[in-house]
Amino acid sequence: MTSSDSGSAPKPPAKDPWDLPDVSGLVVGVLGGTGDQGRGLAYRLGRAGQKVIIGSRAADRASAAAAELGHGVEGADNAECARRSDVVIVAVPWDGHAAILTSLREELAGKLVVDCVNPLGFDKKGAYALTPEEGSAAEQAAALLPDSRVTAAFHHLSAPLLQDPAVEEIETDVMVLGEVRADTDIVQALAARIPGIRGVFAGRLRNAHQVESLVANLISVNRRYKAHAGLRVTDV
Amino acid sequence: MTSSDSGSAPKPPAKDPWDLPDVSGLVVGVLGGTGDQGRGLAYRLGRAGQKVIIGSRAADRASAAAAELGHGVEGADNAECARRSDVVIVAVPWDGHAAILTSLREELAGKLVVDCVNPLGFDKKGAYALTPEEGSAAEQAAALLPDSRVTAAFHHLSAPLLQDPAVEEIETDVMVLGEVRADTDIVQALAARIPGIRGVFAGRLRNAHQVESLVANLISVNRRYKAHAGLRVTDV
Repeated sequence: MTSSDSGSAPKPPAKDPWDLPDVSGLVVGVLGGTGDQGRGLAYRLGRAGQKVIIGSRAADRASAAAAELGHGVEGADNAECARRSDVVIVAVPWDGHAAILTSLREELAGKLVVDCVNPLGFDKKGAYALTPEEGSAAEQAAALLPDSRVTAAFHHLSAPLLQDPAVEEIETDVMVLGEVRADTDIVQALAARIPGIRGVFAGRLRNAHQVESLVANLISVNRRYKAHAGLRVTDV
Repeated sequence: MTSSDSGSAPKPPAKDPWDLPDVSGLVVGVLGGTGDQGRGLAYRLGRAGQKVIIGSRAADRASAAAAELGHGVEGADNAECARRSDVVIVAVPWDGHAAILTSLREELAGKLVVDCVNPLGFDKKGAYALTPEEGSAAEQAAALLPDSRVTAAFHHLSAPLLQDPAVEEIETDVMVLGEVRADTDIVQALAARIPGIRGVFAGRLRNAHQVESLVANLISVNRRYKAHAGLRVTDV
């Protein structure tokens, strides 16, 4: 009625950042799915109704771990896990990160890859950040997987909380990083399938290092406060 | 009545991490107190009843800014600000960080220094982390100020929120880093003087880089969500 009558074409409104796609039909693979973080994520996503396949070097170990988790979670060797999944969460130890991704380059082509690896060192003073040559684990993944859509997320979730069936909600945000909005939107929606969790866009992959290495600080928090610390982003 | 009767000396209970000292009598200096972040911190701490002196290269500019802030905030040149303060918050631009600290080495001897500088670069893709040679701004301060007690904190507070008189509470945590518990306890207590804020211990100075550079991610959050984002540590 006032300024909109001025004749100039109105700018389309910015897309609502909370308007996220329905991801309930996607198959989620978890490489390193027999480790604590991987098992915890597989359990939570399976419990939320997502189809989850955990991958391990040995298919029988993956199947045994999957059977323990229930909720329809399946196990497979890493290659089959990658092949059958739409979204592949990388939850392997930092030590094996480059080798595993290199070996799965073909199976991961075209897939949405979600790196959640935290490159950390430990000594008697506690945890500290390691700096990968590529800048971060996520940027290493992007360099090794030129045909995949690489994002980073799920760094700050407590494995004990994820794995505890008595915990109904995990009151924590997941920072999601990536280059392509359609991809980060999917990862945000996937994070939000877990009760209590929001997926919050938190920048490009070049800013992944500090998100990954902040886990060293959360380890200090856990020690001081006897907690399973996570993070909420305020004012969003 | 049971195990405590066994004769072995009981281990003293761990100190309650929320048992923090009374800091209401400390004088707080803010170097860079005429910048947005410094002015915001000075305003909040002054409003909370803390005695605050803001420092600038020119005493008259500092005094003019202090007069605008009210709440008993005073202005002085950087050297006098440092000399008269018990706790000195370093809120200068990263560009001038090393030079200003080097010039104040004598005045800052023995003082509790709180570095809140975020070394960031900006280009058309947004903000990104710079990596100081010493690892972080805080470690640079520690290297340049061998006779001071250097900590790091106050990185993730939104300057617009700090400066807005209509904002009563700032629902955000302040991560506090340092090597000596007595010092980090004081900084945590100082942060908690601001309504809504908790000071949370979050590790040693060697883990300061990721805390400083996470501001690049918060800038991305602010842009996407039209917010003044901060962080809460969950489960503490």
